[in-house]
Amino acid sequence: MGEKEMPQTSRDLEAERARTSFAPTELNVLLRGDAHTVEARHRLLARIAADPLLGEGRLDDSFLSRAERFDKSLARMRRVHELGLPKDEAFVATRLFREGGALDKAGGFGLHTGMFVPTIELLGSDEQRATWLPLARSCAILGAYAQTELAHGTNLARLETTATFDPRSDTFELHSPTVGSIKWWPGGLGKWATHAVVMAQLTTADGKARGQQSFIVQLRDLRTHLPLPGIELGDIGPKMGYDRVDNGFLRLCRVRVPRAHMLCRHAQVRADGSFVLSSDNPRAVYGTMLFIRVYLVEEASLALQHATTIAARYSAVRRQGGAPTGAADGGGETRPPPLERAVLDYQTQQTRLLPLIAAAYAVHFAAGALRVRYDLFRASQDVRTLPDLHATSAALKSFTTSLAASGVETCRLLCGGHGYSHASGLPALYAEFAPSQTYEGDNPVMLLQAARWIVKQLGAGAARQGEGGAARDAPDTRGRSPPDGAARGAAAVLADPGAYLRDAGRAVERASAPYDGSPAELGGSAAAQLCALREAARVLAVRAAAALHAHVRSGGAPYEVAWSERASADLLEAARAHARYLLAACFDAAVVEAHAARAASRATLGALGALRDLHVLSACDEGCARVLLESRYLTPEHTLALRARLLELLPAVRRDAVGLVDAFGLTDLELNSVLGRADGNVYEHMLAWARRSPLNATHVLEGFERHVRPIMGKCTL
Amino acid sequence: MGEKEMPQTSRDLEAERARTSFAPTELNVLLRGDAHTVEARHRLLARIAADPLLGEGRLDDSFLSRAERFDKSLARMRRVHELGLPKDEAFVATRLFREGGALDKAGGFGLHTGMFVPTIELLGSDEQRATWLPLARSCAILGAYAQTELAHGTNLARLETTATFDPRSDTFELHSPTVGSIKWWPGGLGKWATHAVVMAQLTTADGKARGQQSFIVQLRDLRTHLPLPGIELGDIGPKMGYDRVDNGFLRLCRVRVPRAHMLCRHAQVRADGSFVLSSDNPRAVYGTMLFIRVYLVEEASLALQHATTIAARYSAVRRQGGAPTGAADGGGETRPPPLERAVLDYQTQQTRLLPLIAAAYAVHFAAGALRVRYDLFRASQDVRTLPDLHATSAALKSFTTSLAASGVETCRLLCGGHGYSHASGLPALYAEFAPSQTYEGDNPVMLLQAARWIVKQLGAGAARQGEGGAARDAPDTRGRSPPDGAARGAAAVLADPGAYLRDAGRAVERASAPYDGSPAELGGSAAAQLCALREAARVLAVRAAAALHAHVRSGGAPYEVAWSERASADLLEAARAHARYLLAACFDAAVVEAHAARAASRATLGALGALRDLHVLSACDEGCARVLLESRYLTPEHTLALRARLLELLPAVRRDAVGLVDAFGLTDLELNSVLGRADGNVYEHMLAWARRSPLNATHVLEGFERHVRPIMGKCTL
Ligand SMILES: Cc1cc2nc3c(=O)[nH]c(=O)nc-3n(C[C@H](O)[C@H](O)[C@H](O)COP(=O)(O)OP(=O)(O)OC[C@H]3O[C@@H](n4cnc5c(N)ncnc54)[C@H](O)[C@@H]3O)c2cc1C
Ligand SMILES: Cc1cc2nc3c(=O)[nH]c(=O)nc-3n(C[C@H](O)[C@H](O)[C@H](O)COP(=O)(O)OP(=O)(O)OC[C@H]3O[C@@H](n4cnc5c(N)ncnc54)[C@H](O)[C@@H]3O)c2cc1C
Repeated sequence: MGEKEMPQTSRDLEAERARTSFAPTELNVLLRGDAHTVEARHRLLARIAADPLLGEGRLDDSFLSRAERFDKSLARMRRVHELGLPKDEAFVATRLFREGGALDKAGGFGLHTGMFVPTIELLGSDEQRATWLPLARSCAILGAYAQTELAHGTNLARLETTATFDPRSDTFELHSPTVGSIKWWPGGLGKWATHAVVMAQLTTADGKARGQQSFIVQLRDLRTHLPLPGIELGDIGPKMGYDRVDNGFLRLCRVRVPRAHMLCRHAQVRADGSFVLSSDNPRAVYGTMLFIRVYLVEEASLALQHATTIAARYSAVRRQGGAPTGAADGGGETRPPPLERAVLDYQTQQTRLLPLIAAAYAVHFAAGALRVRYDLFRASQDVRTLPDLHATSAALKSFTTSLAASGVETCRLLCGGHGYSHASGLPALYAEFAPSQTYEGDNPVMLLQAARWIVKQLGAGAARQGEGGAARDAPDTRGRSPPDGAARGAAAVLADPGAYLRDAGRAVERASAPYDGSPAELGGSAAAQLCALREAARVLAVRAAAALHAHVRSGGAPYEVAWSERASADLLEAARAHARYLLAACFDAAVVEAHAARAASRATLGALGALRDLHVLSACDEGCARVLLESRYLTPEHTLALRARLLELLPAVRRDAVGLVDAFGLTDLELNSVLGRADGNVYEHMLAWARRSPLNATHVLEGFERHVRPIMGKCTL
Repeated sequence: MGEKEMPQTSRDLEAERARTSFAPTELNVLLRGDAHTVEARHRLLARIAADPLLGEGRLDDSFLSRAERFDKSLARMRRVHELGLPKDEAFVATRLFREGGALDKAGGFGLHTGMFVPTIELLGSDEQRATWLPLARSCAILGAYAQTELAHGTNLARLETTATFDPRSDTFELHSPTVGSIKWWPGGLGKWATHAVVMAQLTTADGKARGQQSFIVQLRDLRTHLPLPGIELGDIGPKMGYDRVDNGFLRLCRVRVPRAHMLCRHAQVRADGSFVLSSDNPRAVYGTMLFIRVYLVEEASLALQHATTIAARYSAVRRQGGAPTGAADGGGETRPPPLERAVLDYQTQQTRLLPLIAAAYAVHFAAGALRVRYDLFRASQDVRTLPDLHATSAALKSFTTSLAASGVETCRLLCGGHGYSHASGLPALYAEFAPSQTYEGDNPVMLLQAARWIVKQLGAGAARQGEGGAARDAPDTRGRSPPDGAARGAAAVLADPGAYLRDAGRAVERASAPYDGSPAELGGSAAAQLCALREAARVLAVRAAAALHAHVRSGGAPYEVAWSERASADLLEAARAHARYLLAACFDAAVVEAHAARAASRATLGALGALRDLHVLSACDEGCARVLLESRYLTPEHTLALRARLLELLPAVRRDAVGLVDAFGLTDLELNSVLGRADGNVYEHMLAWARRSPLNATHVLEGFERHVRPIMGKCTL
């Protein structure tokens, strides 16, 4: 079987690494913030890797049924607990497995810590916090977050679950009045949770509707784990991914909970049945949503890091075509033919893969920037910064999760047939990441929320008025101690993200002056390209707003109808262009800051700079050319130059491709992919994995004897 | 539980149907060719639906493990046999289940009939055909098609499996000399097939390499079904989809097969060891490849039909947002709130969904046109028509399968959270269709093959030279009896698909005259838009060829290196633009023909015409605007007018959306989707399905007691 010392594929990967123009470990430190974090991460990973349950055989999970997978995942979650890791490390440990292995997706643990606990923190009175948080934090009770219903997800105002206050018994009666009102989707709800925060429409004793409130509802007996009377719950059935989560349904049949179970920091029902709104600012409620969106932008980068690591390494070792074809039908000699081309050398492979590596970096820096802004808000609790932060996080969540989801799928396709195998790790990565496009606000809906803010900015005039004014006065981010210098630089971009739109507002009817540099100047200047991206966003915003107002004026349609049914396609494009600009600007600012801070050697900064160039050029190619030709800001010669420059840049980035993904610092344990192996030894491990496949347990399947044998020799197919 | 007579969702769907401007059944007949075919299909479907094994519970397949699903699929295949359907109907029956249920993906039945049998027909001598075909056709032997190896798929010239002729024993010795040479992926090979056609590199007794040849190799004992000596085979492990297929691996250890087992219509090894090429034209070998590509274009339409039917119906019954929000935090009265907006009414939903419905039609007509051309080739066996046919089928296979795959995924996203559930049918549809982007030629590779032909056309001059000349002289397709009138019209488009490029060739350096109509004229004329699509394809072809030649001239790179490493990104774009143009032109020609033939009522033709308009406008929006602004064929006012017209068209198409998908005539059995139900009763059936989920068999999971209970109350997470 040609047992060589080291397979060609491994030698190929070594050669790639030898050729890299910079030190990936250095870039890894720059990405992670500091050397200490990197080391701590490695120590933890080593501990996990050494554990039999956590460290091994995760690729074989795809041999298991859903029930087995669910079970194994719970077992691993228990083991993480048993390891007795400090709280922080335990959190990191659970995150490490997100893609593919997805430890924190075991049952509802992720939702418990990510939604149930924070909701009580945010919406509970001091007393409620004192009661519930210790129970929840120690997992004495296990909670789900039950908001979505069968018939309503996006439009929360129309949730149908009712909560009716009965002053005589001092209880709320929670009820699911229709099939559509059954809670549907909450993670952990089906088989795992003992409690849930349930969103319901409150009616007080006077028969008045009081809007949605949150109630803590006990679902299961804490001793037997059986559902309590009046409660029907279960798993909602198999999904595209998320095998390890029991997304559940919950039907409430006149279930009574004590008055104290309504979370009452912002609104309260008194014993006499009266309803009072508290003085606390209810907009602080947006806090959790923001938190999760920041997290999702980080996830988007991580998904891209995983996928591009796998695709880049495999593309470097996969040799296919490109050499003389050797002997044809005629007669030739048999002699060892020359090596074929690595598929990474095909330009078509590069144009799809390399911009995704760049995007992984861009999204990473944007996530860091967003986190800095979010931390500032948390520290200041200044609600005037919320509109900007809300719009920025909505736009970036939507843009980056869509980008990452399609990017992961592109990486899978880049691996040819083997990308379709679960041994590649890529199908699972896609299936697990895909829903982030939908939950926490369906992406188009989020973009349209950002568009509302955009339209407001246009109308606001250059000087900020009212609520939006705070962002500008926000303390300078550079003063604090954000995760790292690069994120600090990027965060400045997000300090007043609407400034360019407010300027544009004054000039709605005036076209911008055309770009006055030469095509070569534009092609060579990231700064000029960023201006072009911003200009494209501005033009699309102005265009969308004009379309909206024209429909309102001419069509006689109410504003909301014109918005949703006539103008939203343009509005959505405007929001995307805005997000595209912010993302590129964050990457650029991070690179500038890293240079200024001499955060790494020249070689490393050079490689990072080339990647920034590639990202900005790709963004222009995708999002600028047409609109800026239409607005006459650019000429055809300019857009052609942008594209030419993009193609010219590919060979330099290609040379560093393996180094650039090595710099993400993902271990084989995390990647969970035969194709992405750090040692490049893909084929032998594909074979070893396949041999372990359950269908290979016997030579002859029972189904063959039962169903195929009888028709052999008399088939009509 | 609010047990109403008919749920709102069902009433919504009825109202949509009442509002439709034409008769979907009439359009269905136009699509399927004639009323007789439609009826026959319905009779057959009714028979299948009445069968317990075939007709029921297919949605519950997603509750099964892979092994169970594989088994069940074999059982269904057996039942189809037992029904004793005539050969044709059996074929249709197996096809009916392709998506989601995928009957013909049971084991290797699909590959047996689709690849094994045709290969013997094509490459076998008369004697070999007489020996093997009766065995294969009656399924006395079951065959796989074993071409791809672990290390080689695209580049067949470098397959590593060897076949060495030994004149003494009059046998070939087949051998897998490396891990990379192990056959990998062939469907049915793992557990099912008894034989395989194995592609291997032939070496004759004189030590000369004779290129790849095909060998029939018996894999398993026909009595015991155990692998024969020297043969290791098995399943390659779980994949993204294709659970029902045992894609397999095969390692040959010096396995001997008789000399007669080399398929020898085109090349032969004589008993004395000499090697002779036959006089038969070996290019006829392309026949099977062409056949399968035509089939894949049809599949692409079918996948889009399935997905858009589900998404359109669900979007019509899913009401979300858009109504006054009712009572807020303050105090309001409880009264029945007005109905919300159907999500189909959001413009952002329309811009994503409606063009995909149009694309399903476009691809259907293009597939019909391609089949007409293919049948002409089969009838004439005129190899001079092959280059055009090869390029057209490569371009259309690639373009339409990519379009359909991403279209299916878009439809899934359009269904919000529920699209992620297997109850929607959409995740399975995507997983099952996705590989058609990869097999039978990875899409980028196929596009680049089309690009070779494009570059040749440009160089050929307006008058056809040499091999390409035949297509023009091909008998007029209108004389034959193609499937239907619409396909006949479209087939004419493909009669000489390179004419516009050869004209362009003469004018490489000359820019086209700008379009001379007004923006309004362009927006209102499908013909002018088609010209624009063709012009875009021409410009991109000329540009790519120029880039290629520039790299060869200036870079000093050999042609093949310049092609692959410098020019292929542009070449790929040119091929896509060509395919985009052909697709739109086929749709247009089909509509024109249907009008001319009065193939349906005015109302129906009107609806079809609007859909054609939408398709052509979308194609322009996506593929024309930038390039034709760059070439100055269009002005900004023109491209803006195209986009405005596209948006204006949406409401009319939206009104007919449900009718347009009803016209595909897909039954609930075929759709296999709760969301796509013809009766619109989605929520009650989601609930019923979820209740049957295996995790709900017990209230308390064993894993909960074992893994979660022990850490409750002492968790650190
Ligand atoms: C894996 C997963 C886990 C989840 N976990 C939880 C959980 O723990 N707890 C919980 O409560 N929920 C959970 N959910 C539910 C999730 O929050 C919702 O699915 C999500 O909010 C989308 O809402 P929807 O499904 O109602 O989509 P819909 O709103 O029905 O979307 C359907 C289509 O309509 C469009 N649309 C809707 N409204 C508008 C509008 N105003 N303008 C334009 N277009 C519009 C959407 O863009 C989409 O294309 C989960 C979902 C998934 C998939
Ligand atoms: C579900 C499924 C079923 C299959 N069934 C069968 C079967 O029955 N029998 C069988 O023999 N095989 C089968 N195959 C294998 C299939 O035919 C190959 O996977 C396919 O031909 C792609 O080849 P590859 O995997 O080697 O991709 P690769 O060639 O390795 O592709 C990797 C990447 O390199 C790029 N690339 C490769 N060459 C070039 C080039 N010249 N120019 C530019 N880019 C290039 C590709 O575009 C891709 O992005 C099946 C595969 C799948 C997924």
